[in-house]
Amino acid sequence: MKTPSFSSVQAAAERLRGVAHRTPVLTSHTLDELVGGSVFLKCENFQRMGAFKFRGAYNRIVQLDAPARARGVVAFSSGNHAQGVALACKLLGIHATIVMPSDAPASKTAATRDLGAEIVFYDRHKSHRAEIAQDLCKGGATLVPPFDDPEIVAGAGTAGLELLADVPDLEVIVTPVGGGGLLSGTALAAHGINPGIELYGVEPEAGNDFQQSLERGEIVQTDVPKTIADGLQTTAPGEITFPIVRSHVKSIVTVSDDQLCGAMRFAFERMKVAIEPSGAAGLAAVMAKFLPAGKRIGIVISGGNIDAGRFASLTA
Amino acid sequence: MKTPSFSSVQAAAERLRGVAHRTPVLTSHTLDELVGGSVFLKCENFQRMGAFKFRGAYNRIVQLDAPARARGVVAFSSGNHAQGVALACKLLGIHATIVMPSDAPASKTAATRDLGAEIVFYDRHKSHRAEIAQDLCKGGATLVPPFDDPEIVAGAGTAGLELLADVPDLEVIVTPVGGGGLLSGTALAAHGINPGIELYGVEPEAGNDFQQSLERGEIVQTDVPKTIADGLQTTAPGEITFPIVRSHVKSIVTVSDDQLCGAMRFAFERMKVAIEPSGAAGLAAVMAKFLPAGKRIGIVISGGNIDAGRFASLTA
Repeated sequence: MKTPSFSSVQAAAERLRGVAHRTPVLTSHTLDELVGGSVFLKCENFQRMGAFKFRGAYNRIVQLDAPARARGVVAFSSGNHAQGVALACKLLGIHATIVMPSDAPASKTAATRDLGAEIVFYDRHKSHRAEIAQDLCKGGATLVPPFDDPEIVAGAGTAGLELLADVPDLEVIVTPVGGGGLLSGTALAAHGINPGIELYGVEPEAGNDFQQSLERGEIVQTDVPKTIADGLQTTAPGEITFPIVRSHVKSIVTVSDDQLCGAMRFAFERMKVAIEPSGAAGLAAVMAKFLPAGKRIGIVISGGNIDAGRFASLTA
Repeated sequence: MKTPSFSSVQAAAERLRGVAHRTPVLTSHTLDELVGGSVFLKCENFQRMGAFKFRGAYNRIVQLDAPARARGVVAFSSGNHAQGVALACKLLGIHATIVMPSDAPASKTAATRDLGAEIVFYDRHKSHRAEIAQDLCKGGATLVPPFDDPEIVAGAGTAGLELLADVPDLEVIVTPVGGGGLLSGTALAAHGINPGIELYGVEPEAGNDFQQSLERGEIVQTDVPKTIADGLQTTAPGEITFPIVRSHVKSIVTVSDDQLCGAMRFAFERMKVAIEPSGAAGLAAVMAKFLPAGKRIGIVISGGNIDAGRFASLTA
């Protein structure tokens, strides 16, 4: 399988031009004072369908040829990747079947269905979603995995290109890490521009499969983590993303669910921005001051898909 | 008293360069489909201290000479103007005394105090805030009114300049209207660039003092309106703002509290943006389709200062 590179991130950016939102970078004097540095939030919660996931999904699916498009697309996802695939398919006129865990947030399943996708539910503690998806692909449909695919990684990295175009002199970039698509794509983008930029990934304490894997030097499989960060409940790094993270990323940091809630509350009340738990991981880690003072820090806010009611109960 | 003009808005923009945030303009395909037009949200909820009010306050206060700065500043405000004045004074090293209603939202009083201002409370149903403020000014402090001042109006208009710089071909601009500072400043900015742009102001049904005044052709005084839009609880148009609105604005539209809540919920769940009730007035009116289909519409989202708890109870 082809390895993603800086030039594949650049090619993805061309494909996404005029299709994906060029999301804004927000700053806050209050946040800078709190952190003791200069912080720049790349707001992918303002991306189409509310998360960076649209970038990778579209970049992958738009490259399918006509016969493949006619056979349709299958994806499995805890939520945002589902919406990304559904939206990309809607824009391209392709049938999408999404395999979703039955406990996925209601806002995410509703939004996916609104985008015209067919949804097949499974129990995340009983069945293997990959097997279900492979069955669904027997008719020739293309399986679009959530992160472990070179074009998904390249698409995710385009947010990093935009961030560095807006703020060229960043010293550090911090992203959430689930399967590693966003982190590895961002790392390729950043180091293609400036190899001196330090990259960090942030995962929930309860689901530190990436941290364990880096420590061991090989992919470690964990149980499904219990965390409010529903988008980061992956159980292992990807085969494509892991080596990229290993060679480009300085280290993996973890945050507690309480820290995620604190970051969500801060972003809402002080910056007027709605962030879902997974999307707040980078902000939560930076607010916990894992970095030395005085740095110029970019943070990718990866998504904002959360019901107002759930948001209220988490930030109360 | 000097009348604000397009050139005073341009001069204000120069003073605010590098001091105020140049806030982003957000779009949403879902919103466009809902409205049947192209909608552009100028997000002044991302402005410093969370509302457009900083623009006018800073533009007014930065023009004080050294003796006036030494004597300090007094302001009366239901909330966001207070924070705008407090922040401007903090940046300029000026003592600020803010006269606030005792029922102002806790987030707004706390934020004002955090910015170093001294707060004097009054009962909005019993005392006259203007008299209290005038007493406080006996020592020579400068009273900075919330809207009825040429430099406050000019500062508020700078958000309109930025919106039109980003989206030059707007046909319509819609803003909330309380005392009329934002609406009249925006109108001056818009018509200085393109006299063909239609301007609309939106106020709460319960507090339609501007609508009544335009119908009568003179300033009408109303009771303090009962509405969740705490920033739009003005009881009369300003003497400076009213004639500008009368000559530049096509009409005033009203929205219900329920419509405000619906717009806040939509903005949160679909656009990931926190808007306070007053700030959502323009969006609520456009979502209620008061305009014909097919228009290119700019909406100024005027502020986002609301506690997470109050937001939850209003959008539940």
